[in-house]
Amino acid sequence: MLNNSKKIVEGKPVRGSQKVYVSNGNSNIKVGMRQIFLSTEECPVKSPATFSVYDTSGPFGDNDAIIDLTKGIKPIRNQWIKERNDTVKLDRLTSRYGQMRLDDTSLDNLRFSHVNTHPRKAKKGAATQMWYAKNGIVTPEMEYVAIRENQQLNKKIGSEGVAGDIITPDMVREEVAAGRAIIPANVNHPECEPMIIGRKFLVKINANIGNSAITSDIVTEVEKSVHAIKHGADTIMDLSTGANIHETREWILRNSPVPVGTVPLYQALEKAGGKAEDLTWEIYKDTLIEQAEQGVDYFTIHAGLLKEHIPYTFKRLTGIVSRGGSIIAAWCNAHNKENFLYTRFAEICDILAAYDVGVSLGDGLRPGSQKDANDRAQFAELKVLGELTKIAWSKHVQVMIEGPGHVPLNMIKENMDMELKHCFDAPFYTLGPLVTDIAPGYDHITSAIGGAVIAGYGASMLCYVTPKEHLGLPDKDDVKTGVVTFKIAAHAADIAKGHPGAILRDHEMSRARFDFRWRDQFHLSLDPDTAYSFHDATLPDEADKEAHFCSMCGEQFCSMRANRKLRSEKV
Amino acid sequence: MLNNSKKIVEGKPVRGSQKVYVSNGNSNIKVGMRQIFLSTEECPVKSPATFSVYDTSGPFGDNDAIIDLTKGIKPIRNQWIKERNDTVKLDRLTSRYGQMRLDDTSLDNLRFSHVNTHPRKAKKGAATQMWYAKNGIVTPEMEYVAIRENQQLNKKIGSEGVAGDIITPDMVREEVAAGRAIIPANVNHPECEPMIIGRKFLVKINANIGNSAITSDIVTEVEKSVHAIKHGADTIMDLSTGANIHETREWILRNSPVPVGTVPLYQALEKAGGKAEDLTWEIYKDTLIEQAEQGVDYFTIHAGLLKEHIPYTFKRLTGIVSRGGSIIAAWCNAHNKENFLYTRFAEICDILAAYDVGVSLGDGLRPGSQKDANDRAQFAELKVLGELTKIAWSKHVQVMIEGPGHVPLNMIKENMDMELKHCFDAPFYTLGPLVTDIAPGYDHITSAIGGAVIAGYGASMLCYVTPKEHLGLPDKDDVKTGVVTFKIAAHAADIAKGHPGAILRDHEMSRARFDFRWRDQFHLSLDPDTAYSFHDATLPDEADKEAHFCSMCGEQFCSMRANRKLRSEKV
Repeated sequence: MLNNSKKIVEGKPVRGSQKVYVSNGNSNIKVGMRQIFLSTEECPVKSPATFSVYDTSGPFGDNDAIIDLTKGIKPIRNQWIKERNDTVKLDRLTSRYGQMRLDDTSLDNLRFSHVNTHPRKAKKGAATQMWYAKNGIVTPEMEYVAIRENQQLNKKIGSEGVAGDIITPDMVREEVAAGRAIIPANVNHPECEPMIIGRKFLVKINANIGNSAITSDIVTEVEKSVHAIKHGADTIMDLSTGANIHETREWILRNSPVPVGTVPLYQALEKAGGKAEDLTWEIYKDTLIEQAEQGVDYFTIHAGLLKEHIPYTFKRLTGIVSRGGSIIAAWCNAHNKENFLYTRFAEICDILAAYDVGVSLGDGLRPGSQKDANDRAQFAELKVLGELTKIAWSKHVQVMIEGPGHVPLNMIKENMDMELKHCFDAPFYTLGPLVTDIAPGYDHITSAIGGAVIAGYGASMLCYVTPKEHLGLPDKDDVKTGVVTFKIAAHAADIAKGHPGAILRDHEMSRARFDFRWRDQFHLSLDPDTAYSFHDATLPDEADKEAHFCSMCGEQFCSMRANRKLRSEKV
Repeated sequence: MLNNSKKIVEGKPVRGSQKVYVSNGNSNIKVGMRQIFLSTEECPVKSPATFSVYDTSGPFGDNDAIIDLTKGIKPIRNQWIKERNDTVKLDRLTSRYGQMRLDDTSLDNLRFSHVNTHPRKAKKGAATQMWYAKNGIVTPEMEYVAIRENQQLNKKIGSEGVAGDIITPDMVREEVAAGRAIIPANVNHPECEPMIIGRKFLVKINANIGNSAITSDIVTEVEKSVHAIKHGADTIMDLSTGANIHETREWILRNSPVPVGTVPLYQALEKAGGKAEDLTWEIYKDTLIEQAEQGVDYFTIHAGLLKEHIPYTFKRLTGIVSRGGSIIAAWCNAHNKENFLYTRFAEICDILAAYDVGVSLGDGLRPGSQKDANDRAQFAELKVLGELTKIAWSKHVQVMIEGPGHVPLNMIKENMDMELKHCFDAPFYTLGPLVTDIAPGYDHITSAIGGAVIAGYGASMLCYVTPKEHLGLPDKDDVKTGVVTFKIAAHAADIAKGHPGAILRDHEMSRARFDFRWRDQFHLSLDPDTAYSFHDATLPDEADKEAHFCSMCGEQFCSMRANRKLRSEKV
């Protein structure tokens, strides 16, 4: 099951860059960023300059790091969590299922070697970033986030540099306190590098991963998540199904420098033998605790789909397309009862508050086709999500709202406006939306179009879609394509929203383009390996990387070349 | 030079479809459309239904067609042009260069076998669709276009069916008369199936092709253009450079069922030995005539870039990125004179009117970076394009306006608004725009995002961008990726604009999805081959194409499956 040869991983930065760490003077806070090497305008390279960009790769992007996957990555938040002294280390797992798996010696060969048997839990009430924010306390996580969000402004600072100050720790605190932003950071996921999801910050992207019955190698799953974060995924959602998802999740968490989200309902359904009608509150509750004690940073919970909404979907073209939504609808229908995630929501929030797990309120009734967009079902559920947001906030639980789905381009703004209105400015986390239904095989593109537009209007995080959407399970290449495509959508929105610093990278790229600094163009790109290979397809010689033209227009028709001549004549 | 084995081509429709021809009762007008086979909701297939979609493939998508590339495709417009009796067949080519190439026996092995040595020209004044439109005359081209634009409404009509009536021939005429739409259709390109570019019609896409010094096989170039139109390119622009572009163009035109555009300045520059300063009006004028007599349907002409605009570009980050713009700027600078395309524009229009060549007013000062978007240079030129539009219209020449380029998402609408205002609602034909500069290797996506948005606001045609943009010359696969990506952008905009019928295909797709009709989903998609191969990557068995789930969620977690159960319980 475990492939021994792959357990030791060497950190490796993206081509043409290195990892550096920036501090704000507090020696406990060192924010990793990726420093891209640039040549000067003169060729050959004389005095290299650098350009720093936001980096999600953690130690996996650090040349100096050697990661033993069996031990996990460095728990950078340990000391902060300990010093807050608002949590205790439990004697044993609270979750019955978690403890049962731990006690099962037949799983020893699968189990993460250094599994934590003493998870942390709040001494009482909430141990959440939101609680601190509301109480006027700036946590190290908030400080970290402020440095991180300013990264692109730190163009020329080295590893000893000081962060910019456009996004301040107090501004971060204020946004978290108001519920306009969240910092998903379970007290049991100390390996997580703090990041923030909110309208005033960089647009984030999530990559879904997950094993299946066919691909059961745990290390391969970990590699898939590392692959996603190395290309820029800000969070990953582990949507694994199958027998050993508890153990798989442990490996992923212990090796993840980004927040990990899950949909606990999926595992609960497995525990109920795959039968929606056999789901119980007890099974679900134990699953929440099991995953919270492992360190999952946010849960998608489909608590807003009410029994009365179900008939609204009967005349839809594509009914209920959310997996979670369809499970809940089946449960409500079988028992003729209200959604237990709705009726138990306050209890759920009490659990989440004790570990600082964020809640991502699922849109079980999101439209699955252009036809069903912005309909009664969707907006009825959205209003309930707003109601639930208030409950979560009253428990100091951080909240995101999940959004569609499939929506025509001209109906996207209404979605964003309705979310802000009904959910009181809570961050919007959308899947696409896909702006047409007719392009299976290219749905990373149909959804990046909608994603860029909705993020430009204010969505805070975009869930990626891969080319395999609607057709099958994505492979490693699909994961990369999905991540890079959504980095484009997110970045386009950052520019549109005027995020401080976002457009500086575009300016650097365009300057390199005008200067024919080919390597700088490749290194500044979202995917240097692809840029290199595409250029080299027609002009493979190293000398052509100094050339003042490319094969697209050729020398004679190169406008940039002509421009330089023009300017030199005029100046 | 010519690969004999490839000269005979068999027409082949896209998988899962066939070519049908629809008439409006006029036996001379038969509009090709692509009829997609659908199974009914019950499996196995019982009574097949069909769904018809707009088709650009001409005879190359017709199972019954065998095309001899040396003879070219059927000239479907011949009789219409002849019957109008407004043109004469010339005794010989008017263009000196054209005649010289014809007389050069050393080119016999390259020459198109059935080259037309007696091109048509207006008896006097204009022989343009606009002239007829203004004079209240509905041409067969307009009738053809009306049937074609309604195609998607003709869901269940067979080859004997009658077209819908939402877009009427008279509405087409009215739009052309007002200059809000153009039908590029040179009297010397009778092989062209009429199509329309305008805000009230389906958004169109253009694919650039063109040989280079490296790829000099003419048949390969023809194949590239066929490849583009089979995937949905509405027009192609031949941007060839090099020695035999005259002959290459002839082969492309004689085998093109879609309008062909060029940038005559490129060839003129070649004739001037590659030196911008050696360009003359005489060389350029002869090139216009040469290409008009071959049958080019629209010319990009950079007549709006004035000498006084050049200094506006000096402080730009990326100066002038248009090839044509940089050539004109170099000429103005060398001679210290006004752009001769501007000063001679009325004469140019007289030439175009005689052959019904449309003018696509080039944006020589389009921004090449986010930084330079919507700046003084760009908008100064745009205003001149408006002035030129009026001149062209006064000569009954059909006009499009070319647009950017690189533009942040939040600045796209201003571009569209300015175009409509300054150019009096002439159709806008844009390149993207690219909404970020940092994604070389993925610029088909960055530009499809901007393209969908600007077309949603009213741009009438989008020039595709391939993944190789900024890096090198696209190959055949890149052409396909670019075309399909831009079909997505165009279709998303058609839905957003509420084009009658556009969204019906989405509804069919979603219905097929909900019914687990996998083959129908593949066939309804923009690229059935890719959809098949992605699905088959994980579930290759034919039986799985009847399965009520796919490998993405698996059987247990399939929401669509759960829905069917839910509905069956309720009904």
